[in-house]
Amino acid sequence: MSDVYIIGGGESKYGELWERSLREIAVEAGLKAVENAGVRTKDLSAIYMGNSLGGLISKQEHLSAIMSDHAGIATEYIPSIRVEASTASGAAAFRQAYLSIKSGEHEVVMVGGAEKMTELYGTEIIDITSSVVDREWEAFAGATPAALAALSARIYMKDFHVGKESLASISVNDHANAAMNENAHYRNKITLDQALNATPIAEPLNLMDCAPMTDGATSVILASEKYVKEHGVKGVKILSSAISQGPFALHSRKSFYTVEPTVISSRKALEQAGLKHKDISFVELHDSYSIYGLMTLEDLGFAEKGKANGMVESGIGIGSALPVNPSGGLKAKGFPYGAAGVSQIYESYLQLMGKAGKRQVKDATYGMTHNMAGSGTASVVHILGVE
Amino acid sequence: MSDVYIIGGGESKYGELWERSLREIAVEAGLKAVENAGVRTKDLSAIYMGNSLGGLISKQEHLSAIMSDHAGIATEYIPSIRVEASTASGAAAFRQAYLSIKSGEHEVVMVGGAEKMTELYGTEIIDITSSVVDREWEAFAGATPAALAALSARIYMKDFHVGKESLASISVNDHANAAMNENAHYRNKITLDQALNATPIAEPLNLMDCAPMTDGATSVILASEKYVKEHGVKGVKILSSAISQGPFALHSRKSFYTVEPTVISSRKALEQAGLKHKDISFVELHDSYSIYGLMTLEDLGFAEKGKANGMVESGIGIGSALPVNPSGGLKAKGFPYGAAGVSQIYESYLQLMGKAGKRQVKDATYGMTHNMAGSGTASVVHILGVE
Repeated sequence: MSDVYIIGGGESKYGELWERSLREIAVEAGLKAVENAGVRTKDLSAIYMGNSLGGLISKQEHLSAIMSDHAGIATEYIPSIRVEASTASGAAAFRQAYLSIKSGEHEVVMVGGAEKMTELYGTEIIDITSSVVDREWEAFAGATPAALAALSARIYMKDFHVGKESLASISVNDHANAAMNENAHYRNKITLDQALNATPIAEPLNLMDCAPMTDGATSVILASEKYVKEHGVKGVKILSSAISQGPFALHSRKSFYTVEPTVISSRKALEQAGLKHKDISFVELHDSYSIYGLMTLEDLGFAEKGKANGMVESGIGIGSALPVNPSGGLKAKGFPYGAAGVSQIYESYLQLMGKAGKRQVKDATYGMTHNMAGSGTASVVHILGVE
Repeated sequence: MSDVYIIGGGESKYGELWERSLREIAVEAGLKAVENAGVRTKDLSAIYMGNSLGGLISKQEHLSAIMSDHAGIATEYIPSIRVEASTASGAAAFRQAYLSIKSGEHEVVMVGGAEKMTELYGTEIIDITSSVVDREWEAFAGATPAALAALSARIYMKDFHVGKESLASISVNDHANAAMNENAHYRNKITLDQALNATPIAEPLNLMDCAPMTDGATSVILASEKYVKEHGVKGVKILSSAISQGPFALHSRKSFYTVEPTVISSRKALEQAGLKHKDISFVELHDSYSIYGLMTLEDLGFAEKGKANGMVESGIGIGSALPVNPSGGLKAKGFPYGAAGVSQIYESYLQLMGKAGKRQVKDATYGMTHNMAGSGTASVVHILGVE
């Protein structure tokens, strides 16, 4: 079983890219990654694409093939596969690419994540984005992604006597970090007051608790241990990869604020990597809604259930004991559904290679990423490291 | 690297299942496969689903999770992933499952393929099914899947002086085999005359040249060598798995009647398996249109380019030198997009285990399956065998 390394990456600007197509931004990210990794496109033995809504938005299936064709590399007959696990598509695609190298089948593989959210407009936005929750049992009854997050938030806040400030702090931190990320969707810092007093979306959540509709694409290049050694390439090692999936609808779960798949996959990932929580230098987590930031810190095991507020209040910025979302997270770097998981991996690669510029986490050795499907149907956790 | 075996399978009836939902048929196939393989659902370490159009048809993403939830096994937190490569989604999902076991990550994995085509109606049928070709460069210009197949047929017939009878023979053979398959969509035999004189669809192709809109679901269970040995289970070995992808649009390819990804992936699959064409006992190939049956026999290397007609005329039935589509193929067993690839694998499993009943190919030792994306954007070839 080969070890697997990330040897490069690249991405488009994240934001409202009205003038650019899904194909364009996906190709931009892919070609930047290839250049950054110092590989040739003909070295690629496969391409895995994470994409959630492309079919529904553009009525085009087999998007991975459209991408490689548009990049001008289809004549090299590289197989491409689209992996879809709603908003966890990016990390799920990354995991399949990792397994394909581990199996000995591939040497150098590209993983791309891309989504063009701004093609949606009006009520279509709620309709199409609700395809990541249970349509028959949730969305048809009005339980959209925002409504489900609000439900979890309300019960969580009541049961643990947690104030709105703790939720808002998640978003304030994301914006502070995104201000240092030139590819981020929102580069403006926000104050706690601003976060607390934004337009209501689904009470108790307001605009500043909800990740935006972002267009964006990120790609990374993975390579086998053999390739890395033969080419003297420096890379970040994938120490573990874990995925878990539970009941789809929120009402079918044991708890409204514990995402069991996150608990299970983070435990597995730490075990596989032979690490403890204190070893983790930073975490990139899936805070599509601020409440998920708190819940996830607990489900990942960094705080006890109901107590992440203490951790958040004592600081989760770049210089803290556990920097959270140095990239700017889903709230401020942005949330292109199928790209989010790959974006987290790319940020971790930059951090662990010491290439994260102003937002560099000091002595970053091990990074954890957490990508979640919908309201917590599935979670994918990876631990990456440098030795 | 572990060897990988197919240890069981199951499927729903194929046909127009108006009264049944996508969830229902997928779950039926999955639970039948689990029972048939003699495993427990809690033994499954992952589920891979091949599905092409579910998002577009039902506006529900993450269908793999919907399936496992509806099967009542979500509380076992088994990860499930949807793999999408348009009409090759089934074989692509199978391949990812195979690689995941080969990598040492999983022991027992379910692969499901499911599609509910009859939810589409009216012009929506052409619109949505055209998501498997290049929408911007083909479908918008009227080049639907049927039109593209007709284009290939017309040029092929002209260049090689091949008559319509040769195309029709592909469909006649499918119907003859499907008559012996109780799960097939169409169980009526058809004569060459009937095949030649059906309603025109896209000249020179008529209704009998085109695979139907079929609902259906098939699942198979894969297991590692370790599991098979420890449990004394009999299975069919996956001898090789190959995939290749080329230019998306037909007009971008070198030839209108050579699908380069099929040529490449079949060559690789035979090499990996250490086999020659004469060793193959039967082939399950992707004849969504009759012309693809002829083209594929050539691209797989069973006949020279332009000469598959000779082979077809001398017979491709169950008792012939190379039985083609013993299941009834896409034309008569049916063509649920994302299920087709898994259906071919299941048929091969039955044949190689000697469980194919009336349509059993005598002394079946090695079977080849060929699943194609759209008009030939990608091809996935597997070789399975018993030793």
